[in-house]
Amino acid sequence: MLLHLSTWPEVERYLTHRRAIILPIGSTEQHGPTGLIGTDIITAQAIAEEVGQRTDTLVGPGIPVGMAHHHMAFPGSMTLRPSTLVQLLRDYVMSLSAHGFREVLVINGHGGNIASVTAAFYEIYEEMRLAGRDTTPPLRCELCNWFLMPAVAALQQELYGEREGLHATPSEVAVTQYIHPTRIKIAPLDPHPGTSSSFSDWRDFRTRFPDGRMGSDPSLATPRDGERFVQTAVAEIVARHGDFLNGV
Amino acid sequence: MLLHLSTWPEVERYLTHRRAIILPIGSTEQHGPTGLIGTDIITAQAIAEEVGQRTDTLVGPGIPVGMAHHHMAFPGSMTLRPSTLVQLLRDYVMSLSAHGFREVLVINGHGGNIASVTAAFYEIYEEMRLAGRDTTPPLRCELCNWFLMPAVAALQQELYGEREGLHATPSEVAVTQYIHPTRIKIAPLDPHPGTSSSFSDWRDFRTRFPDGRMGSDPSLATPRDGERFVQTAVAEIVARHGDFLNGV
Amino acid sequence: MLLHLSTWPEVERYLTHRRAIILPIGSTEQHGPTGLIGTDIITAQAIAEEVGQRTDTLVGPGIPVGMAHHHMAFPGSMTLRPSTLVQLLRDYVMSLSAHGFREVLVINGHGGNIASVTAAFYEIYEEMRLAGRDTTPPLRCELCNWFLMPAVAALQQELYGEREGLHATPSEVAVTQYIHPTRIKIAPLDPHPGTSSSFSDWRDFRTRFPDGRMGSDPSLATPRDGERFVQTAVAEIVARHGDFLNGV
Amino acid sequence: MLLHLSTWPEVERYLTHRRAIILPIGSTEQHGPTGLIGTDIITAQAIAEEVGQRTDTLVGPGIPVGMAHHHMAFPGSMTLRPSTLVQLLRDYVMSLSAHGFREVLVINGHGGNIASVTAAFYEIYEEMRLAGRDTTPPLRCELCNWFLMPAVAALQQELYGEREGLHATPSEVAVTQYIHPTRIKIAPLDPHPGTSSSFSDWRDFRTRFPDGRMGSDPSLATPRDGERFVQTAVAEIVARHGDFLNGV
Amino acid sequence: MLLHLSTWPEVERYLTHRRAIILPIGSTEQHGPTGLIGTDIITAQAIAEEVGQRTDTLVGPGIPVGMAHHHMAFPGSMTLRPSTLVQLLRDYVMSLSAHGFREVLVINGHGGNIASVTAAFYEIYEEMRLAGRDTTPPLRCELCNWFLMPAVAALQQELYGEREGLHATPSEVAVTQYIHPTRIKIAPLDPHPGTSSSFSDWRDFRTRFPDGRMGSDPSLATPRDGERFVQTAVAEIVARHGDFLNGV
Amino acid sequence: MLLHLSTWPEVERYLTHRRAIILPIGSTEQHGPTGLIGTDIITAQAIAEEVGQRTDTLVGPGIPVGMAHHHMAFPGSMTLRPSTLVQLLRDYVMSLSAHGFREVLVINGHGGNIASVTAAFYEIYEEMRLAGRDTTPPLRCELCNWFLMPAVAALQQELYGEREGLHATPSEVAVTQYIHPTRIKIAPLDPHPGTSSSFSDWRDFRTRFPDGRMGSDPSLATPRDGERFVQTAVAEIVARHGDFLNGV
Ligand code: NI
Ligand code: NI
Ligand code: NI
Ligand code: NI
Ligand code: NI
Ligand code: NI
Repeated sequence: MLLHLSTWPEVERYLTHRRAIILPIGSTEQHGPTGLIGTDIITAQAIAEEVGQRTDTLVGPGIPVGMAHHHMAFPGSMTLRPSTLVQLLRDYVMSLSAHGFREVLVINGHGGNIASVTAAFYEIYEEMRLAGRDTTPPLRCELCNWFLMPAVAALQQELYGEREGLHATPSEVAVTQYIHPTRIKIAPLDPHPGTSSSFSDWRDFRTRFPDGRMGSDPSLATPRDGERFVQTAVAEIVARHGDFLNGV
Repeated sequence: MLLHLSTWPEVERYLTHRRAIILPIGSTEQHGPTGLIGTDIITAQAIAEEVGQRTDTLVGPGIPVGMAHHHMAFPGSMTLRPSTLVQLLRDYVMSLSAHGFREVLVINGHGGNIASVTAAFYEIYEEMRLAGRDTTPPLRCELCNWFLMPAVAALQQELYGEREGLHATPSEVAVTQYIHPTRIKIAPLDPHPGTSSSFSDWRDFRTRFPDGRMGSDPSLATPRDGERFVQTAVAEIVARHGDFLNGV
Repeated sequence: MLLHLSTWPEVERYLTHRRAIILPIGSTEQHGPTGLIGTDIITAQAIAEEVGQRTDTLVGPGIPVGMAHHHMAFPGSMTLRPSTLVQLLRDYVMSLSAHGFREVLVINGHGGNIASVTAAFYEIYEEMRLAGRDTTPPLRCELCNWFLMPAVAALQQELYGEREGLHATPSEVAVTQYIHPTRIKIAPLDPHPGTSSSFSDWRDFRTRFPDGRMGSDPSLATPRDGERFVQTAVAEIVARHGDFLNGV
Repeated sequence: MLLHLSTWPEVERYLTHRRAIILPIGSTEQHGPTGLIGTDIITAQAIAEEVGQRTDTLVGPGIPVGMAHHHMAFPGSMTLRPSTLVQLLRDYVMSLSAHGFREVLVINGHGGNIASVTAAFYEIYEEMRLAGRDTTPPLRCELCNWFLMPAVAALQQELYGEREGLHATPSEVAVTQYIHPTRIKIAPLDPHPGTSSSFSDWRDFRTRFPDGRMGSDPSLATPRDGERFVQTAVAEIVARHGDFLNGV
Repeated sequence: MLLHLSTWPEVERYLTHRRAIILPIGSTEQHGPTGLIGTDIITAQAIAEEVGQRTDTLVGPGIPVGMAHHHMAFPGSMTLRPSTLVQLLRDYVMSLSAHGFREVLVINGHGGNIASVTAAFYEIYEEMRLAGRDTTPPLRCELCNWFLMPAVAALQQELYGEREGLHATPSEVAVTQYIHPTRIKIAPLDPHPGTSSSFSDWRDFRTRFPDGRMGSDPSLATPRDGERFVQTAVAEIVARHGDFLNGV
Repeated sequence: MLLHLSTWPEVERYLTHRRAIILPIGSTEQHGPTGLIGTDIITAQAIAEEVGQRTDTLVGPGIPVGMAHHHMAFPGSMTLRPSTLVQLLRDYVMSLSAHGFREVLVINGHGGNIASVTAAFYEIYEEMRLAGRDTTPPLRCELCNWFLMPAVAALQQELYGEREGLHATPSEVAVTQYIHPTRIKIAPLDPHPGTSSSFSDWRDFRTRFPDGRMGSDPSLATPRDGERFVQTAVAEIVARHGDFLNGV
């Protein structure tokens, strides 16, 4: 059930027996020569919708631009400042809390968002306390990074081994191929992408990873793999966060 | 051409001959008993994509939550504070400006956003000046409210007359029916919706407009009408903003 | 009745039967070779005081500096960032609300302020809701742009036709001549001022409008015209906003 | 020379040989049963204009609302938060600095503003350093509290002794009587106003000082005294800040 | 070498051959019936100083109050909002960067700080980029959570097993005993402290963990253990971050 | 009694009969060729702890970095922006207020902090009022600048006369020698340090005061003097603020 495709009376009915909502967050950033710039929100959105369907949970609006400072040397990348994301997520959650939502599950497609989303949760909690506006039952926010879940990591390893890499990975590219099969991009890939795992700043990032990949081989991705990643992630999210979504 | 479905080399090529980008903005708010909560971003997104296609202009990520304070008495409505939207749009535009984008056309689906988006443009311009970071050619931002354009207003009048109303209108509902034909909602509509054109605060809003409509009759909407509204809006946007999109 | 020329017991008495207050806002910006830099606050202040007198409404402190980014290439122009104006107006209105004022009419002398003042109203409403501090009756804020009112526009057209122009107009200059008859400035005016209605940034503004006028001929202004503009504006404000000022 | 009554070419000429500007700041707060709510800005404005005239220095727009938290239990008092005043003054000064102003003298009529104005100066300096935008010669800001200057204090003592008190003092009331002789208010004054020099919060303030005066007897004020205070203050400001205003 | 116990010429000499600095961050929060409220900054400070000595690296001022929202039901706990910590750390690092420091190692004693410190790093990087103030070599910030390092975790397991718990742990208490042997507190400890690993809000935290401990048995702590933890942490930090501290 | 060396049950007991807390604030800035960069927090901390002991008052965490913009041309100096300090102190005090602390005495070691700390107090008071969160008894904040107290000034004059100077003074250096006798620094001192009492910006500061001293001769300092300054300051603080610390 998608908030954007629902009416307010439908939400009103939902709130008579449920209090949970799912919010997808991604990033708008380069994903190598063949990866879509919207990869992180596409994957988060797809998985969030599937979790929503499987658990009858409402899925709210996504946050398509996240923390992508280090990708800013590549055209098309966009980034928020953490202070902006904190206020943005605060407004999202405070609005939802006013209607009686009490469990907010943020499904995240981008590692760079983890810190700022978590900081936003603290900001929300603390602002509620300072304003004397704590609710009963209390508002609870959880973050789920689908690409880091054990079963997903196991499948990454099984399918691609170390060619999974760290950015513009075949697993995330596969998910976008599954969701947008008409947008599969092909480009020559240097067989030896930057393999450093560290870098200093956004300028240095492009020097070390000239085509944007971090040790990955996205040419391995297939739409069929993407489907498996979605199913694996969804199953694990349901197993781990199902109680939370049911207000337990 | 959608930024999210492009790769960074594709954006790099685009920037060799074009500098414009389109950003859709909407709202997440009640639209009466039958209108989708995501109506304003759905319409803005659809029109933005069509303008993008017609003019070969890149379409960037949307802003799905806007200024909806007055709808907060209806479940599912979400709102930003203007101060948040200003910083959010600032981060969007500053990121794009860094890559060489110089014309930003915001296509807006919600009247409540007009002031804050315009204020955000001023904030962006002034911060660039204060930082000594003005560009040559200068960054330019324009706002287009599709639902207020003369040709669109004429069609609203022609099709619905005064039953168009002010909120949860048949014209915007029609566009969502055209885009999401499987999500057409049916509900009994009081034949005499609130017809006041004014209200005081968000609590008073629900008292005056109990089902969320402001004098509108969205039961008149049809998907076919929606298609006409999209075509009309797109044609007028191309006519009025085409030069801007081409950097003239 | 001017707040600044009243005592607190006088305000206390006022509040026993009235809840409205008027706030003038202007700008500190170039107004061509002969227009005063304070034109926009001078006009707003004069009209606000007259409306206050005609309706027995209290007039509060003005905001003399507004949104004037595009005039910053002309010496003496000053501008706020929109984010500053939002917080400033928030503090004004929150202070007044604490005493029981419930209707705030902002009389504005500068087009560039419209968006930011409107955004400030939303910010105020939303902060009150978030803090659980909504009042009964609710706080209401209205914006009145005197120079855009139909009767004023008609008089502009009648007196000056297209030589009214868009900035440093004879109508606003006339009002300042009426208020400050000893400060009428005379300077040679290029008969063909910039007639573009668009510009890109503050640097481009001065290129297109070298002496600061936008298609206007302020040499047409007379103090007598100014008096008529004040009377016309005041009459229309009383007609349109009188009920609001009386708490209806 | 008043910025608001000047044209931009006049300011341009001024800047060819001068770089100083004076900004008056006051407060909008209760001043006892007979003192005007605008007392602090009226006095600051009057003295600033006289200093401007005596030294041929430009006087910019005033800040009529300042730090008046402790007076908020009295109707009509208004206050900024310090964080708002810091940003407001930052925008004022940054605008002026862009045109080449280098010496900013803030003439202040209210003790409660001292800390926040001084903090604003630090904020301005530090933001300029952080942005790499320091100017040569450097921007300098000075604060002058006219009511605390030694010659003024001597005159307060001479005329009123300990009946000068701490707030709603005869000296400041006298200045407003001199400036607005038609607005002299008369009201019975308790012969024993609160004489505590301390208080805890804004609620306690009204308990200790029921009519708003802090140990003062404003019934002693006369317009003639007011004129002497203005002359005394102006002479001392010229003596102490004259070099500064001349860029020395 | 401690910044606070150095002179500026000493820092100037240091900067001729080194560019690194260490900043300790902790928290001011309850640590159970026997743990010191300053535990997290005491441990971070002690370890930071020892790392500084071992590597000849300058140690800057600490941040004693961090993110402790969830402990606010216990007297004496203090917390920042994440937005405050982001700006605070930004000011620290920007100041240091201006002098030529390029490697900033934050040694952290509190899990709750991880997200906000990391978000602060992104904010700093992005503000530098937006201001066009990136340095060469680039500024780099790293976060080290001493209590999570593998060798430390192994020692926790070896000494205390599962009685290490999650908060007010014997390992951190031991370090404070080593540093402040005269401040070893003794109090009766419920043998069955709350063992939940989750909680909802700050009120629920105290319900689940009535004396503040999360499954820990700090009675196991000894000063001798504390010394081992310091040595173990320092050795591992030197091994893992030594190159960074040397600018490699 | 130090908060950092206490447990939460100890604070709970303290709060049954006391409501006061002391917060030391200093600065991290150059103090001439022989003065420690941490001088201002070292002195404030030492005096705060002694006052705490003498009056059985809890001493909370210090703020080691303050307003030091003008010292930024000297390596090792660090500065906050005033807006950051305001939010930081707000978080400190709001946290303490939630536990029932009602008197907060800030003991300050640096003149540059006075304005921003005072502004922070206003911000705190006003935010509490705006949120409808005023307490009974009310929260009260006081600032004590130890180095400006009359008895301290008398001792400065007695011991050093005009060689006390304005910055990097023998009195503050003496206190650091008393607290850190092993860190007494010796360096050649120009017998004629800059004697100007004014300067324009941070760059000009270093030009006028090349070694950082402002007319002072810190070579006069002795640890024995430092002890006398601490005792003098503590006695005077107890005399002047003792009632406040006892909630009177
Ligand atoms: Ni990704
Ligand atoms: Ni709509
Ligand atoms: Ni104007
Ligand atoms: Ni006054
Ligand atoms: Ni801890
Ligand atoms: Ni000092």
